[in-house]
Amino acid sequence: MAEIHPRLLQDCLVLGRLELCHVLLMLDARYPWLILVPDRDGMSEIHQLNEADQHQLMRESVALSRVLVELFRPDRLNVAALGNVVPQLHVHHIVRYRHDAAWPAPVWGRVPALPYVPEQRAGLVEQLTAALTARTRFIAA
Amino acid sequence: MAEIHPRLLQDCLVLGRLELCHVLLMLDARYPWLILVPDRDGMSEIHQLNEADQHQLMRESVALSRVLVELFRPDRLNVAALGNVVPQLHVHHIVRYRHDAAWPAPVWGRVPALPYVPEQRAGLVEQLTAALTARTRFIAA
Repeated sequence: MAEIHPRLLQDCLVLGRLELCHVLLMLDARYPWLILVPDRDGMSEIHQLNEADQHQLMRESVALSRVLVELFRPDRLNVAALGNVVPQLHVHHIVRYRHDAAWPAPVWGRVPALPYVPEQRAGLVEQLTAALTARTRFIAA
Repeated sequence: MAEIHPRLLQDCLVLGRLELCHVLLMLDARYPWLILVPDRDGMSEIHQLNEADQHQLMRESVALSRVLVELFRPDRLNVAALGNVVPQLHVHHIVRYRHDAAWPAPVWGRVPALPYVPEQRAGLVEQLTAALTARTRFIAA
């Protein structure tokens, strides 16, 4: 099992995993924001994955996107593999609204993260875990 | 054939197409920057594509990424479907270097685009067209 980069562990909560990827919740209450981290050693870019993993990543990204759309009815999803700060391959899935703090800019580095209130975070984790378990092969952490 | 959004046509040059997607060059000399636009009407998010198109998008994104890596040896690729400004589904593929104008921030909305000098643009288009034609089923515009 590939280790998750310490910076991701610092900024996120590990919710669980799908077949290929760990599923992380970014701890920024400004946006519902999940991250897929393929459980493969030494990967920094999507094109470095083997072909089967590339397609599995697409399936997991689509499944996650649909859960986010169902739960949060976003104006847009932002789906992105950037990695300018954390080299380990990870794919952001961010719920965006026209009224959110950074709109229409991307979220990274714009507005400082807003910590979740503990009850709000617990409720969100419960909601996400239930939806992921119902719709995907998610295994909670 | 789906029409390409006028804002993309204003900011980019259409280089040609792959099986699913149009291939556009963003006219910003700060970064080698290609965009895939699936030739499908009414799509704004990846998860709205049918499954065959999702996997074809992955194949074309990986092929494009490999061409960019081969030609430009980036420190990172940024691969992203955002769409906060242009609603039509389009996927950015941006060559990033630690010494580029926006690093480590994402490129969008940071530093004004730098127009290409005509000879520089013609050389880049020739280089990209040759590599895409050699490595993929690219058809030049």
